[in-house]
Amino acid sequence: MSMIEEAALAQLFAEARTFSRWLERDVPDGLIESALTMAFLGPTSGNCEPMRLVLVKSAQGKERLLPCVSSGNSEKVSTAPVTAIVAYDTLFYEQLPRLFPHTDARAWFTSNEALATETAFRNSALQGAYFILALRAQGLDCGPMSGFDPQAVDEAFFPDRRCRTNFLLNIGYGDRDALHARPPRLAFDEVARWV
Amino acid sequence: MSMIEEAALAQLFAEARTFSRWLERDVPDGLIESALTMAFLGPTSGNCEPMRLVLVKSAQGKERLLPCVSSGNSEKVSTAPVTAIVAYDTLFYEQLPRLFPHTDARAWFTSNEALATETAFRNSALQGAYFILALRAQGLDCGPMSGFDPQAVDEAFFPDRRCRTNFLLNIGYGDRDALHARPPRLAFDEVARWV
Repeated sequence: MSMIEEAALAQLFAEARTFSRWLERDVPDGLIESALTMAFLGPTSGNCEPMRLVLVKSAQGKERLLPCVSSGNSEKVSTAPVTAIVAYDTLFYEQLPRLFPHTDARAWFTSNEALATETAFRNSALQGAYFILALRAQGLDCGPMSGFDPQAVDEAFFPDRRCRTNFLLNIGYGDRDALHARPPRLAFDEVARWV
Repeated sequence: MSMIEEAALAQLFAEARTFSRWLERDVPDGLIESALTMAFLGPTSGNCEPMRLVLVKSAQGKERLLPCVSSGNSEKVSTAPVTAIVAYDTLFYEQLPRLFPHTDARAWFTSNEALATETAFRNSALQGAYFILALRAQGLDCGPMSGFDPQAVDEAFFPDRRCRTNFLLNIGYGDRDALHARPPRLAFDEVARWV
């Protein structure tokens, strides 16, 4: 393997941005479904794949979601073509006999709720990040958000409370004219060391 | 933007795999440093960038790490050219006046340790996933691992306990001949719904 092309790297990282405003351009459901299928190929601990999603697109769905988000995120959610609720299944381990069949991985979690919750949270965040980059790879733009009331979102969209929301993710074609300058990043030497 | 090339998608997702065995091929430090710099361009909540890493490459570093990993991961760590300790800075918010200067974001966290910890854990997992895909984009292979004693790793590598380990990540050129069949993935309809 060698390095992927500069243009692809730019699309995934260097020129990609977090968007708050969206072009009035149709977002085909199939692109999002392809990106999600691709994201599920990414690695998770013991292939546990705990991420679950509600893809909020209808006016009715947006109306249910809007009271749950912070005022600063309200317009972003109402104008985004799709807002994904990125959640995790607290009982993800029920799938492990099928997803990780060569050992009894289910037993690691059935008697240890703290480990199950931490594993679901960590791995759904990993999968959410794969999803962001897979959406960008499809030519779409993203706007992830943490400013919302997670209990309210869970009540509205997961009434049996089996799933819990990790973060929200606006999806569409971003309006580059509405971007501000990119905020600074920490440098390699500030965040990593070789030993 | 349009979809990136099929070959790049394959390298990032479709043909990429989690590796346990490694080719004896030199891994230039610069490739890992480039991947990390690229990964830091990925989105985090309020640009908080909490991920911190120790890149364990020396025999001495591996000797310190090996007693902290589960027996099943011992050979993977000892043979990987590099094992990254993917951690988060519990005091990440001290950087926010610089990273997110247009509001007092630091104040969101100074009086709310639970929110700070959750934010650091979620966003360092997102950044860890960006790092995995950025490494793959550089032509490298990964083997992320959760089978280790986090307290032991923290004691050995973060004696002041400011940082906490999220997961471990072997890095190198993977040996495709040692791969087993890819385990199954959940289908779109099992993990997502449109509303």
